[in-house]
Amino acid sequence: MTDECITRNFSLLNRSNSGGSSNGQTKSNRSSIIDNTDAKGCMEGSSGGATGTGSGVPSSINKYVARMPVDRYASEYNMNHKYRGQAIIFNHEFFDIPSLKSRAGTNVDAEELRKALKSLGFDVSVHKDCKLRDILKYIDKAASLDHTDNDCIAIAILSHGEHGYIYAKDVQYKLDAIWHYFTAHICPTLAGKPKLFFIQACQGDRLDAGVMLEKNGVTETDGESSMSYKIPIHADFLFSYSTIPGYFSWRNTTNGSWYMQSLIQELNTNGKKYDILTLLTFVSQRVAIDFESNVPSTPLMDRQKQIPCVTSMLTRILRFTDKPSGNKAG
Amino acid sequence: MTDECITRNFSLLNRSNSGGSSNGQTKSNRSSIIDNTDAKGCMEGSSGGATGTGSGVPSSINKYVARMPVDRYASEYNMNHKYRGQAIIFNHEFFDIPSLKSRAGTNVDAEELRKALKSLGFDVSVHKDCKLRDILKYIDKAASLDHTDNDCIAIAILSHGEHGYIYAKDVQYKLDAIWHYFTAHICPTLAGKPKLFFIQACQGDRLDAGVMLEKNGVTETDGESSMSYKIPIHADFLFSYSTIPGYFSWRNTTNGSWYMQSLIQELNTNGKKYDILTLLTFVSQRVAIDFESNVPSTPLMDRQKQIPCVTSMLTRILRFTDKPSGNKAG
Repeated sequence: MTDECITRNFSLLNRSNSGGSSNGQTKSNRSSIIDNTDAKGCMEGSSGGATGTGSGVPSSINKYVARMPVDRYASEYNMNHKYRGQAIIFNHEFFDIPSLKSRAGTNVDAEELRKALKSLGFDVSVHKDCKLRDILKYIDKAASLDHTDNDCIAIAILSHGEHGYIYAKDVQYKLDAIWHYFTAHICPTLAGKPKLFFIQACQGDRLDAGVMLEKNGVTETDGESSMSYKIPIHADFLFSYSTIPGYFSWRNTTNGSWYMQSLIQELNTNGKKYDILTLLTFVSQRVAIDFESNVPSTPLMDRQKQIPCVTSMLTRILRFTDKPSGNKAG
Repeated sequence: MTDECITRNFSLLNRSNSGGSSNGQTKSNRSSIIDNTDAKGCMEGSSGGATGTGSGVPSSINKYVARMPVDRYASEYNMNHKYRGQAIIFNHEFFDIPSLKSRAGTNVDAEELRKALKSLGFDVSVHKDCKLRDILKYIDKAASLDHTDNDCIAIAILSHGEHGYIYAKDVQYKLDAIWHYFTAHICPTLAGKPKLFFIQACQGDRLDAGVMLEKNGVTETDGESSMSYKIPIHADFLFSYSTIPGYFSWRNTTNGSWYMQSLIQELNTNGKKYDILTLLTFVSQRVAIDFESNVPSTPLMDRQKQIPCVTSMLTRILRFTDKPSGNKAG
């Protein structure tokens, strides 16, 4: 046996948008073309390295089927379901952990974010100072709902954090503990729909001092394509972090965090105008340019900068277009 | 002393695009508003937790200054420099490490990517089967160049990988080892310009079996703003990974990897039409929908899916608009 795998490439002939095979290659249904994976592990042993504990997914998973929320080659997500969908805000101000100070300003963030998401049509719930078991209870409940008539889901977490971890009221946890509830095989009514995460929390204790810049000079949705299609279970997630891994995330005790202030302002100003990745690019611009810490008494903390970080597994353009009135909440 | 930090918020009054403060908040130059960082560490001790080894950045960094490549609130990156910029492709086929098999198909990826980047105006160089010391030599040399007349820089790595690591010919390394060369304080002539990374490599040995979806129903650039402004040193990076952390990345021994085939086809078809995040969303759509592994003899590897992953710290829209002929390479 070899580690080399055969690709089905089953649909290349049927692709209709974006101009098809423009680079001169002719595509066809190839049933015997050799594939590899680019993993060290895949190259060893008789089973191609994928039978170890790392693979994690039994072949029986191939049976999973979900309803198609949008045509196969649509360039935009379908945001025309009856409802926009659920938005859940986990707002953390006070902690049981002695080393964690209360997060003054977070209630401004939570309230402004609630209003911004509501005006985009979300059915918003806010949960204050939850212990991890309660967070998981709400997440499990949300993942168990029928989202058939909803466009998407949004989860926001406002808390303390450090590298790789976020704090609940009582313990720290990894974001993985939450977002895996919404993978397409576990939550099929959200399969093929955007799953949005907004995280306001530190990802470490490093500081970004910045660089001064000085002046010097100066698809539309496809028509019909009724074939069934298969998507990766991890597709259609988006994670918007307030800061990059390893770094501080700043919060103003009166106005809320730099990131949440910026996110809320962009959602309110351009939320229905631009797609989400453009919106979040402008959020990054606001945070990166408009804010700077001022702690002259602590030189190491003084005049520091922050850059948010977006990680996207989205497969289509996402735009919060208007809904008919009366269908504002899901 | 307290951990609470004072925010300068120095420029909120001057913000001119995107409608400003639309959420009813009035902004002003506040010199005494209290800030926190959302880190556990920041709350302890007399120095706010930022004096540990984690902070890494001396306060003297505040002196770093670079040339402003674009107006402060421009919504798009300035892609009208004399040259597009350097593109460096590290193409790995053969390895000194016995467990790593040769990567058949990678030369197709490298050659097609070279042509695609060249047609977007990049000055492309391809380095084959480099040892780590040679990779670092080329990276160091590139970071030392004067990029004043260039729009941006692009680095592509085609190799084996596993969680958190990429393989050079001789040893594994972290992507951090490369991209830190281009942070704004180390490479000031790229400050405020896009720094693009395209990574074709496994990030682990997990498999994504997918879910079947079945049919059921249905900025423009600002005008003048001549003030100097400060940006985070980590702003303006973009990382486009072929797969998500922990997962396999698939490669066809004849046609090249699923991700590179898709990236190249999008660059060739829509490279000058859409912004980079829209382009990469469509790359993800191609990989997620068009490809599926076919290894009936190894059920665990059979009919598996893949989803790419984009991590963006961009602060403006990036579009590879046409350059005047004669200025194709930088």
